[in-house]
Amino acid sequence: MNKINRIGVFTSGGDAPGMNAAIRAVVRAGIYYNKEIVGIYRGYEGMIEGDFEEMDVRSVANILQRGGTMLKSARSKEFRTPEGRKKAFEQLKKSNIDALIGIGGDGSFTGMHHLYLEHGMPYICIPGTIDNDIPGTDYTIGYDTATNTAVEAIDKIRDTALSHNRLFFIEVMGRDSGYIAISSGIAGGAVSIIIPEEETSIDELVEKLNKGGKKNKTSSLVIVAEGGKSGSAMEIAEKVKEKSSYFDTKVTILGHLQRGGTPTYFDRLLASKMGVAAIEGLDQGKTDAMVGIRHHDIIFNKFDDIMNQPKDIHKDDLRIAKILSI
Amino acid sequence: MNKINRIGVFTSGGDAPGMNAAIRAVVRAGIYYNKEIVGIYRGYEGMIEGDFEEMDVRSVANILQRGGTMLKSARSKEFRTPEGRKKAFEQLKKSNIDALIGIGGDGSFTGMHHLYLEHGMPYICIPGTIDNDIPGTDYTIGYDTATNTAVEAIDKIRDTALSHNRLFFIEVMGRDSGYIAISSGIAGGAVSIIIPEEETSIDELVEKLNKGGKKNKTSSLVIVAEGGKSGSAMEIAEKVKEKSSYFDTKVTILGHLQRGGTPTYFDRLLASKMGVAAIEGLDQGKTDAMVGIRHHDIIFNKFDDIMNQPKDIHKDDLRIAKILSI
Amino acid sequence: MNKINRIGVFTSGGDAPGMNAAIRAVVRAGIYYNKEIVGIYRGYEGMIEGDFEEMDVRSVANILQRGGTMLKSARSKEFRTPEGRKKAFEQLKKSNIDALIGIGGDGSFTGMHHLYLEHGMPYICIPGTIDNDIPGTDYTIGYDTATNTAVEAIDKIRDTALSHNRLFFIEVMGRDSGYIAISSGIAGGAVSIIIPEEETSIDELVEKLNKGGKKNKTSSLVIVAEGGKSGSAMEIAEKVKEKSSYFDTKVTILGHLQRGGTPTYFDRLLASKMGVAAIEGLDQGKTDAMVGIRHHDIIFNKFDDIMNQPKDIHKDDLRIAKILSI
Amino acid sequence: MNKINRIGVFTSGGDAPGMNAAIRAVVRAGIYYNKEIVGIYRGYEGMIEGDFEEMDVRSVANILQRGGTMLKSARSKEFRTPEGRKKAFEQLKKSNIDALIGIGGDGSFTGMHHLYLEHGMPYICIPGTIDNDIPGTDYTIGYDTATNTAVEAIDKIRDTALSHNRLFFIEVMGRDSGYIAISSGIAGGAVSIIIPEEETSIDELVEKLNKGGKKNKTSSLVIVAEGGKSGSAMEIAEKVKEKSSYFDTKVTILGHLQRGGTPTYFDRLLASKMGVAAIEGLDQGKTDAMVGIRHHDIIFNKFDDIMNQPKDIHKDDLRIAKILSI
Repeated sequence: MNKINRIGVFTSGGDAPGMNAAIRAVVRAGIYYNKEIVGIYRGYEGMIEGDFEEMDVRSVANILQRGGTMLKSARSKEFRTPEGRKKAFEQLKKSNIDALIGIGGDGSFTGMHHLYLEHGMPYICIPGTIDNDIPGTDYTIGYDTATNTAVEAIDKIRDTALSHNRLFFIEVMGRDSGYIAISSGIAGGAVSIIIPEEETSIDELVEKLNKGGKKNKTSSLVIVAEGGKSGSAMEIAEKVKEKSSYFDTKVTILGHLQRGGTPTYFDRLLASKMGVAAIEGLDQGKTDAMVGIRHHDIIFNKFDDIMNQPKDIHKDDLRIAKILSI
Repeated sequence: MNKINRIGVFTSGGDAPGMNAAIRAVVRAGIYYNKEIVGIYRGYEGMIEGDFEEMDVRSVANILQRGGTMLKSARSKEFRTPEGRKKAFEQLKKSNIDALIGIGGDGSFTGMHHLYLEHGMPYICIPGTIDNDIPGTDYTIGYDTATNTAVEAIDKIRDTALSHNRLFFIEVMGRDSGYIAISSGIAGGAVSIIIPEEETSIDELVEKLNKGGKKNKTSSLVIVAEGGKSGSAMEIAEKVKEKSSYFDTKVTILGHLQRGGTPTYFDRLLASKMGVAAIEGLDQGKTDAMVGIRHHDIIFNKFDDIMNQPKDIHKDDLRIAKILSI
Repeated sequence: MNKINRIGVFTSGGDAPGMNAAIRAVVRAGIYYNKEIVGIYRGYEGMIEGDFEEMDVRSVANILQRGGTMLKSARSKEFRTPEGRKKAFEQLKKSNIDALIGIGGDGSFTGMHHLYLEHGMPYICIPGTIDNDIPGTDYTIGYDTATNTAVEAIDKIRDTALSHNRLFFIEVMGRDSGYIAISSGIAGGAVSIIIPEEETSIDELVEKLNKGGKKNKTSSLVIVAEGGKSGSAMEIAEKVKEKSSYFDTKVTILGHLQRGGTPTYFDRLLASKMGVAAIEGLDQGKTDAMVGIRHHDIIFNKFDDIMNQPKDIHKDDLRIAKILSI
Repeated sequence: MNKINRIGVFTSGGDAPGMNAAIRAVVRAGIYYNKEIVGIYRGYEGMIEGDFEEMDVRSVANILQRGGTMLKSARSKEFRTPEGRKKAFEQLKKSNIDALIGIGGDGSFTGMHHLYLEHGMPYICIPGTIDNDIPGTDYTIGYDTATNTAVEAIDKIRDTALSHNRLFFIEVMGRDSGYIAISSGIAGGAVSIIIPEEETSIDELVEKLNKGGKKNKTSSLVIVAEGGKSGSAMEIAEKVKEKSSYFDTKVTILGHLQRGGTPTYFDRLLASKMGVAAIEGLDQGKTDAMVGIRHHDIIFNKFDDIMNQPKDIHKDDLRIAKILSI
């Protein structure tokens, strides 16, 4: 393999708090190791269009603490075709880019994997998504901040739930993954947590709520991950209302505010470590791989080793949620 | 009028951050002035049921900074009838309560006014509602916190809007009042603010958004007060989408999280001043009145002087919003 | 007076949260009214050096929610001399600047007043200081945010004070002014508030603390404004320790963290209104004046009308603090 | 070993955010497993005095999100003597307590270990300390929240540092441990991090700052862990000022505000898991051990296995801090 001198960095998929910290780490570590760093705007869409910009220390000044991504993100249909990827590769070659560092979720990873298979472009993926649904790492960038945002909202809603003896259904993000729901549910003291990975029985839920109601527990929070088979928070609330008359019921959908906000120390530290590791990994010849964190240590996962296996939800956390919601 | 020795305090209507600080101030100032203070739970509902409790300094320990209301709140249909109010009055008499301090919105004020007219029960109202829609005071308790909560959410959504070049419609609370919408809209840098007090033309809104789109302004926030004639955020977003193809559009409804949370210094200070003033007002023979703040000074408004006039929205703030959204 | 076409804007003195929102409002309102706006960096120091930059909408993009000041601030000894001011004026003329809008405290106001007297340069001052110690306005930009920052810190310290039955002395900012101390003290539930405007008797303080100790009140917070005659928080704590053995005593000096942070809605709204008003004021021929807020309304104060009178602390707030700290 | 039916729970040493969540989990899991739970107030001091209280679900209502510890904490000299521990044991026996769960740092762990050796009292320790300086666990309860509090303060100070081109020395907690300093330093973008575990050369620091000054980096943050051999933040700042004239230098000592505050989701989840695990561990016959977290999994460490080995600071994080501070 040729020496890597010039590296393109981009963000892709849904934005996540800490992506800017990762971009900053890639740029600063790149400079430290005498690489040239090129920012690619709007993910694969900007890659196809050649929307590139040279980056130096000043480009990433004062972004460490900012939510969102200064390189912007977008979804690109064209890149999903071999023709689109060929265009992208030609843009990269025209700009003498030797390797890529992409920050995003499994779609971003898969995109780079295809570019690697079809055109031999070396790359490292940095897992950045609030959903924490990528195998091969204990945590993804953005998950810690998003869960704290959810918990802060839950804390606020608890105030008003307690004041009015109400039952609240709170919908949190996590399309195919219950991580945010489970963690924010335990941390928020939810009576029940509904996740995509498990079927929830409305009858059992109603029974549990009624039992609480009889014990004079007059307000309760149920956390619902969006997009589960059990239905949306709104749908579940409707079904519960039909079967139970004990509660004044409300629904709140937290929505996109979970994506933004100043990243926590955890996400900034994780992003900083992963950004440095991505540069060092490329320098050491690693490719077709994703940076991960295990314990406190950086690891590298080959695409084929992790993307063919599901990331299991922490079953034990669910068990603990049930014990604590007596 | 007889001397007032024993005062009942309660919260009523939607809860608002700072209500606990007001309860604390009523109890502590009451003790300072050698009054007995009785807490009435669940607003007029608890008044009818005689759900009372003696309060001392310990009852209000460590609640100054808590959202919600430790006395709980509820809506009572029965109290809207003369019979219901008679029951409530008899409960108050049975417990030797000489006067009331109620913390809430216009419904709470009106309720006490009727009790005063029908049964001669002296009272002072403390304006506590996030909507800021009560005449006779510059600010109501809870409005400052709720607006900050809305702005914090808007800041988070802006991060993701900027990252994805999106148009966001954000629905804030304020059923008949655009205060939260205007203040959070200006503070959040909204391109447009839609309030109940004004008709909004969808065509003008689309034109404004398109103009921004042409100037390369690729993300925008529109703040919508719930319950306006122009429709909900969801409905307005649908109409805009039909007429404009420039934007990727999303809707977020902030909902009940605006009610809760640790009150700001402003709401705690306001609540503390109003709580002391309510006790001092009753002691000085004031009744059938609401405490208000003008400037930095406490004032008292008689029910008939303020409840028959509408509270005007700050027209000049709307003008400023338009200048700043060029 | 000639028509004003080109306006210089700068920040001066200690930075305050919301200054960026004011700069943004000046630039956007300037463009709305067809003015050219020139940013002057580093206050009077940059004015003397001609450190200027044309500003447009892009210059102030995404700064509304940022603490600090993008135009930076500095203290300038040279500007305090007539020669320094002459240099500054010549730089302004060279750049065809017709008028100034300066955002800062009384030093900034006085500086522009001298420039106006000596060289006829029209100007409007916008009061931006966390200390709230400027007459002619209910609030200065930054005070609301700084007080909330202080209260958030006090809330955190209360947690640990309660857990360990400790007495904490917390020093807040406000060199000659007790505003932050009084407001954060009432909002934070302090047992005593020590401000520069009043002499505090250590004996009375000790007596109060001992009385609380006997009533089993085992943790207490005392708020001290820096720089008062009664001494620093550290000095007062030492004196109290000598005379009282009831408490485990700690001191925390909040310091510069009170200056920074995302501005509250209140400071952003205030800054937005004042920024627009400054442009409109200059356009209407107003000069040698400061924008102020009374109630919800913008007012203009001539330099001579307000700068010769002290701003009184709210005596009534102190009285309320005492009632509530029983 | 006899069956464990009645368990005493207490907090000891410096308080940490999340201790309440751990108490709640112990009580709720205890009830789930049909144990009686007794709260012991003020750590070992209250244990010696027999300051006990039966706990049920209501005792721990609405404490999940509170900083500090509802059971209070204290330091006890008497417990460090065999006689003190004998008294404590007799109080426990008198109250029929079969086992202990103590939440605290190494002092708390050591205390229970002695009680176990001398009197055979079974126990599990839950690591609760903001310093994260206990071997056998990736994280201790309180560390995540305290580091976020430090980073929030650093973010605020950065605003004012940038506005005034200043050099700030910020002292964070961590008496013998640089964890908070390293994590908050990387997350806060510090130019240098000074920890107890490493000697810092003032000359190298000055050289680094001067190098930055020449590159037009006009503001910088240095993070200093309290109590290191290199001196306090104040002392280091003085030494730097003597050798460098480039900067306007300020010092801020964050102090006790790092101990308090609403715990993050991470600390609440960690505390919840550890609380349940402690009950389950005792039930399964585990004793003389501390709960720890590795990865996402609960582990148990025997006292002798972990308390004789130092907890190493993450050397790699320091290396990353240096790469990023170019």
